[in-house]
Amino acid sequence: MTKKYVYLFSEGNASMKNLLGGKGANLAEMTGLGLPVPQGFTVSTEACTKYYEDGKTISGEVLDEIHAALAKSEEINNKKFGDPANPYLVSVRSGARASMPGMMDTILNLGLNDVTVEGLAKLTSNVRFAYDSYRRFIQMFSDVVMGVEKSLFEEILDAVKTAKGAKQDTDLTADDLKEVVKKYKALYKKQKGEDFPQEPKNQLIEAVKAVFRSWDNPRAIVYRRLNDIPGDWGTAVNVQAMVFGNMGDDSGTGVAFTRNPATGEKKLYGEFLMNAQGEDVVAGIRTPLAISELEKTMPEVYKQFTDIAQVLEDHYRDMQDMEFTIERGKLFMLQTRNGKRTAAAALKVAVDLVAEGKLTKEEALLKVDPKQLDALLHPTFDSDALKKAKPISRGLPASPGAACGKLYFTAEDAVEAAKAGEKVVLARLETSPEDIEGMDVSQGILTSRGGMTSHAAVVARGMGTCCVAGCGDLVIKEKNKTMTTADGKTFKEGDWISLDGSTGNVYGEAIGTKPAELTGDFGTIMAWADAVRTLKVRTNADTPRDAAQAVNFGAEGIGLCRTEHMFFNEDRIAAMREMIVSKTEEQRRKALNKLLPMQKEDFKGIYKAMGERPVTIRFLDPPLHEFLPTEEADIKALAKDMILRYDDLVQTIASLHEFNPMLGHRGCRLAVTYPEIAEMQTRAVIEAAIEVKQELGLNILPEIMIPLVGEEKELKFVKDIVDNTVKKVFAEKGVTLEYMVGTMIEVPRAAVTADDIAKQAEFFSFGTNDLTQMTFGFSRDDAGKFLDDYYQRKIYESDPFAKLDQTGVGKLVKMAVELGKKTRPNIKLGICGEHGGEPSSVIFCHNIGLNYVSCSPFRVPIARLAAAHAVILAKQA
Amino acid sequence: MTKKYVYLFSEGNASMKNLLGGKGANLAEMTGLGLPVPQGFTVSTEACTKYYEDGKTISGEVLDEIHAALAKSEEINNKKFGDPANPYLVSVRSGARASMPGMMDTILNLGLNDVTVEGLAKLTSNVRFAYDSYRRFIQMFSDVVMGVEKSLFEEILDAVKTAKGAKQDTDLTADDLKEVVKKYKALYKKQKGEDFPQEPKNQLIEAVKAVFRSWDNPRAIVYRRLNDIPGDWGTAVNVQAMVFGNMGDDSGTGVAFTRNPATGEKKLYGEFLMNAQGEDVVAGIRTPLAISELEKTMPEVYKQFTDIAQVLEDHYRDMQDMEFTIERGKLFMLQTRNGKRTAAAALKVAVDLVAEGKLTKEEALLKVDPKQLDALLHPTFDSDALKKAKPISRGLPASPGAACGKLYFTAEDAVEAAKAGEKVVLARLETSPEDIEGMDVSQGILTSRGGMTSHAAVVARGMGTCCVAGCGDLVIKEKNKTMTTADGKTFKEGDWISLDGSTGNVYGEAIGTKPAELTGDFGTIMAWADAVRTLKVRTNADTPRDAAQAVNFGAEGIGLCRTEHMFFNEDRIAAMREMIVSKTEEQRRKALNKLLPMQKEDFKGIYKAMGERPVTIRFLDPPLHEFLPTEEADIKALAKDMILRYDDLVQTIASLHEFNPMLGHRGCRLAVTYPEIAEMQTRAVIEAAIEVKQELGLNILPEIMIPLVGEEKELKFVKDIVDNTVKKVFAEKGVTLEYMVGTMIEVPRAAVTADDIAKQAEFFSFGTNDLTQMTFGFSRDDAGKFLDDYYQRKIYESDPFAKLDQTGVGKLVKMAVELGKKTRPNIKLGICGEHGGEPSSVIFCHNIGLNYVSCSPFRVPIARLAAAHAVILAKQA
Repeated sequence: MTKKYVYLFSEGNASMKNLLGGKGANLAEMTGLGLPVPQGFTVSTEACTKYYEDGKTISGEVLDEIHAALAKSEEINNKKFGDPANPYLVSVRSGARASMPGMMDTILNLGLNDVTVEGLAKLTSNVRFAYDSYRRFIQMFSDVVMGVEKSLFEEILDAVKTAKGAKQDTDLTADDLKEVVKKYKALYKKQKGEDFPQEPKNQLIEAVKAVFRSWDNPRAIVYRRLNDIPGDWGTAVNVQAMVFGNMGDDSGTGVAFTRNPATGEKKLYGEFLMNAQGEDVVAGIRTPLAISELEKTMPEVYKQFTDIAQVLEDHYRDMQDMEFTIERGKLFMLQTRNGKRTAAAALKVAVDLVAEGKLTKEEALLKVDPKQLDALLHPTFDSDALKKAKPISRGLPASPGAACGKLYFTAEDAVEAAKAGEKVVLARLETSPEDIEGMDVSQGILTSRGGMTSHAAVVARGMGTCCVAGCGDLVIKEKNKTMTTADGKTFKEGDWISLDGSTGNVYGEAIGTKPAELTGDFGTIMAWADAVRTLKVRTNADTPRDAAQAVNFGAEGIGLCRTEHMFFNEDRIAAMREMIVSKTEEQRRKALNKLLPMQKEDFKGIYKAMGERPVTIRFLDPPLHEFLPTEEADIKALAKDMILRYDDLVQTIASLHEFNPMLGHRGCRLAVTYPEIAEMQTRAVIEAAIEVKQELGLNILPEIMIPLVGEEKELKFVKDIVDNTVKKVFAEKGVTLEYMVGTMIEVPRAAVTADDIAKQAEFFSFGTNDLTQMTFGFSRDDAGKFLDDYYQRKIYESDPFAKLDQTGVGKLVKMAVELGKKTRPNIKLGICGEHGGEPSSVIFCHNIGLNYVSCSPFRVPIARLAAAHAVILAKQA
Repeated sequence: MTKKYVYLFSEGNASMKNLLGGKGANLAEMTGLGLPVPQGFTVSTEACTKYYEDGKTISGEVLDEIHAALAKSEEINNKKFGDPANPYLVSVRSGARASMPGMMDTILNLGLNDVTVEGLAKLTSNVRFAYDSYRRFIQMFSDVVMGVEKSLFEEILDAVKTAKGAKQDTDLTADDLKEVVKKYKALYKKQKGEDFPQEPKNQLIEAVKAVFRSWDNPRAIVYRRLNDIPGDWGTAVNVQAMVFGNMGDDSGTGVAFTRNPATGEKKLYGEFLMNAQGEDVVAGIRTPLAISELEKTMPEVYKQFTDIAQVLEDHYRDMQDMEFTIERGKLFMLQTRNGKRTAAAALKVAVDLVAEGKLTKEEALLKVDPKQLDALLHPTFDSDALKKAKPISRGLPASPGAACGKLYFTAEDAVEAAKAGEKVVLARLETSPEDIEGMDVSQGILTSRGGMTSHAAVVARGMGTCCVAGCGDLVIKEKNKTMTTADGKTFKEGDWISLDGSTGNVYGEAIGTKPAELTGDFGTIMAWADAVRTLKVRTNADTPRDAAQAVNFGAEGIGLCRTEHMFFNEDRIAAMREMIVSKTEEQRRKALNKLLPMQKEDFKGIYKAMGERPVTIRFLDPPLHEFLPTEEADIKALAKDMILRYDDLVQTIASLHEFNPMLGHRGCRLAVTYPEIAEMQTRAVIEAAIEVKQELGLNILPEIMIPLVGEEKELKFVKDIVDNTVKKVFAEKGVTLEYMVGTMIEVPRAAVTADDIAKQAEFFSFGTNDLTQMTFGFSRDDAGKFLDDYYQRKIYESDPFAKLDQTGVGKLVKMAVELGKKTRPNIKLGICGEHGGEPSSVIFCHNIGLNYVSCSPFRVPIARLAAAHAVILAKQA
């Protein structure tokens, strides 16, 4: 059976979206429903893929099919390409599987040439209209298909307008437009060295190629990456008979949604313009009218349109976004698709459609994109105030939400100001772990360096704090405590500033914010999701505050409590540093004894915040030198505290330097060389659990997680320390409780030897951040230097640190799951990398049989919904 | 069936080595052969393993078996434990599967107590002998079993000797010794709080435990790691009836080899002492006599011994190393084992045994340890001169061989002196890639920092140059050009120095060296190995000199030619740096055009050296900043050359800094961002091949290897650049030739997606250095900080960068082989990591079906022999 590459609208339907693209499939579906659709055909996405495979040429067989479909559609429309008496004119539009509005190119009025333009004039008795259409076509074709600068045409048009004293295009007469066409054709010839193509079939094939090419233009590539659209899908091309909304006052064009896309309200919502083409609506030269006004102008057409809207919404069982044209009083449907909507609208529409009996709850859940929920969980700007504000700069939207506060340039200053009751925004060149406390008290964080995965971005997302990162055109001088914009305006400490973490905009003024509103619809959808999902959702939280926040968002436990973050606080870092530079076990134990009560208090706070929900505590993970001071003054202070010679301390710090800290002395390797660290942490975990039990009667089940294990014996060594210490604590306290010891699977060797490791580990938690780094062989901190080139060259389509790489990293995860279960069938399995809150990764985790995902508190609702999607999608598969 | 843990000598044989240990199995075998062996029993290695499993206790069932075997052996020897009339005395010795001489503990004369010592005195009519035996036993038991400091006993003995005016132990009378015994027992009681154990059965069980414990003493752990002996093997314990070589002038003891272990000469070789115990021979207080002297003293015993020696050699079909004791004129065999021998002896014995018809060639090959060959391939010191020399320091034996030359402290000085005809030794704090030229001209390299895998060590091994690394007690001042020893002796530039890269010794004088001698036996063994093996052996070589050296050692091609090493030469580094700091593609191409002719000349030299053997050329791999200057003066010079502002250049260099260079912008990532680099390298590879063909008629088949690939599309992107450039060159030159494009598999993701990658790659070469780093998640440069702790805690038993980790890394390699072959059944497979020259890794490579291994030139013979072993061992399995 030979492949079919071209389909008449009457040959397709909505289920053929992958082949015909969204637009093409829906045009076919509407044709099937008997709706008034200008007829034509779709060149399939497979033809596009083939075009690229064939070295960017359209093969003979595809050409033949296009010509055959063209002939049939001429017959259906009863018009002919190039026929002066009754010319067939078409639009050529791209249409991928997923909607990519504005990303690819469109050509209207194709089929016009020096002869057919006269035929069109006669047929419509409107010479001006015909030549206006022709000049638009020449301009569009030259620009989109042949790469002639659009501005050159605009210059000609402006010159003619000036010469004729015309203010607007509509002031030009038919003769004026004939002159424009003449000049346009001359320009084309000058630019391309040949006459403007007169043969409609050639025009068509070149236009189809141009659409195929546009699939790979830079803005389309970026759009795909931001929206997770695979590069190998390709685009279809829709060739459709032209209808004209600009044939006079009985013609018009418009767009409408079956419900309000901002609020979800069930009421037709849209706008239209009489005597206009689609581009006029978009261009904004004339102000369109609300769709309800159409009832007054053309009541019958309005009635017909509202009926069609209802038919379409009922048929698709979702809010529709429609385009229509009225040609001389006759309504034509040009497009329908499921409408894009705000998060709030998505929730309302989904809940309403269930109430209306149009969707089941499961179907409704699939209508809400988990990623959208994020917008609902953060403060937003007061929208009126925002409209008036003008950004002073724009960085990367690193962590969503809106923030307004006074500007501070050091963590210490921010902490002090916050203690004094001020709302603060922390601005830094880039942040480091030492800034944690300052970040914690800030409304928002602004950096001039670093990307979406910089320290500032990662930590801010974890905290749910608004962050704009990598704002390169701001000159931040931390010492001077000033920030200067590209325009030379300087802000100082204490000045008001506002950040929009969802757009990356920075405002040099105070803009009011309002807190997140978790509406009733949100609660409804979450309840439905919880009823469906089987995957548990935990959170990554290091403080009682984060833990409480996460519980509020529905977290069912802590999947990752990073003990090291606790050590950066001002009152602890000294003891931590003392521990690190200790030369003997005795010195080290002395320092650890100072840390023990603090760490125990931390755990108690977290246990209390979590009630009896499980808490996974990861033992010390980062390279020790991260805790050490770098400034001379700090080093001197530490030397004094510890009664050490300054030079010796500098030497010790230098000896801790690592060539590749990510691949260095960290994780459980620290416990192997300094078992006393693991002893102290075990003691803190267990004593805290005992005390909380004694104080509040809560039964805590601590899960102790050993990081960076690559070998069974390594885990056993540390586990033995833990078990022996626990025994001692039990004996001392005369109390016992249950606890578990498990490991992170984050080193490739752990994944491939998971059967051995499961002999020791009672649970696995996949640390997919590190696992991604080591599996790809690039570090998150360094990959920024080249990943953009990888996207541009279509080698990678998404950031593997954001979206789990299922092909490579996922294969290792799956292997580890299978090997682990072979040894220990009831092993508890989870994931605690950043991927735990990314919907496609959550679905993957469900499918391979994990018990839970763990993510930052603000991603918990996203993960809950994605986990429900996973169940529903698996049923459908 | 219950397990049997204890075997009488009469119950075992030589094939039970794993269970009985080498010593035990051979005692059993000799018993079976009817040779005069004092009878006893062996507690098996499994009992040792069980001892550790049972928490370091001997279980009841093993105790029962020991007691039963004891009873039977009492019967066989017709003596009884604790019998005053006829006491049974035993030796208790460890005996692992592999010989670990001196690593574990031995106890003699066990069974003596206050009663049996009198019995022994009566039985031998020698009170002095009996008490001497008893005091030796008390001392040995107290030290080895009970942990009482040996020196405390020595003090007592010395005090008694002083009091009695005795110079030697033998000057003490029976009464003196009785006094010593009394004092020893008092000391024991004081130290341990109880009387010295009188019950022989208790003595025995405690002694067995002590031997088990000694398996895990620190020196045994280190020995095992150095000799690749797994920690879970455990040791057996041999309990054997005592015979005494010190019962008078008709008694004696000795050791002998059936052939000369230094040369392999076929002649009984050994020494003996009359009226002595084994420890006296070792202690060196009396000078032993050559074994041939025994013929004069006791001709019959000598005859009996030479007959037994022949029986044993014929039986074991290998050179034997034997221990014997003569008790009152009667010969007893205490041990036989295959004798350790020098590399030269190993070759001669193997070749001779084939000539004598005792071994097949394949059997003979297995008698030679591939690792031993290394010693034959490097220069050695003149042995007489060496004996007189005294080391001034000792570092790590980082690269074998002997070197003698004048001391220089910078690469530049070394190069100049070498040009002037001097032999030089380069001493540095540590070396860096910029020192390559200096290292290249040196006889030997000495560093005060860095380990066995430091830059100096790795590069020196690759070059086959002698290197002593990490000589921490030498203070090297590069600026002052001085080196000071721990004794305060200072050496300056131009002073003579000698290095022994096989021991790590450093000598402050000139010691004559002699070049490697590849004897006839070497050639014979290599020829036999080549006839057997199926795995090809290539070399890693970056220069024509190394390539020629490798061909001389039998290399069949180049498996890894690192193009970056060529760029460190003084005349190239400038152009390289210019390329790196270029801001535009145009600038970069300009710099690359300067590099092209140099790189082409390099390749031509290498092609010529290799004849028509295949050459795999790896494209630029390291992070670019490795090439940049770090000294202010060099940066200034570069800025001047490139007409750049100094500050801008500093800024550019800083921007190239990476947090984790190993996981940064390197490998094919460079070609993805700067395709023009790959274009230049392709052009150099292909143009060089064409020119060599035109000049010499040689048909070169270049294999272009793209490093650090992790994704098929990444490889395709670079491969397309290569293919397109090749097409251009072919068109320009009007010549074509065959070439291949393949990739390194060194990133875990490449291994798990090897089926996809094989769509593009015509060959895989496993880069197991990087693959090990990423699979384990630790970098070679940083792991030194903690790997020692891992060995000590028995988590890892060998350095995974030296010996391929078959469990983890090997699993990924195997997976990649299988996936790659699924896509491309005839894919060419090789390995080019350092493991390619390590025997156990070579065998693994053979077993999983690789086509070749590639290693540094000096390891080529090792790999050839190991590859032959692989075939023979596979047949035996």
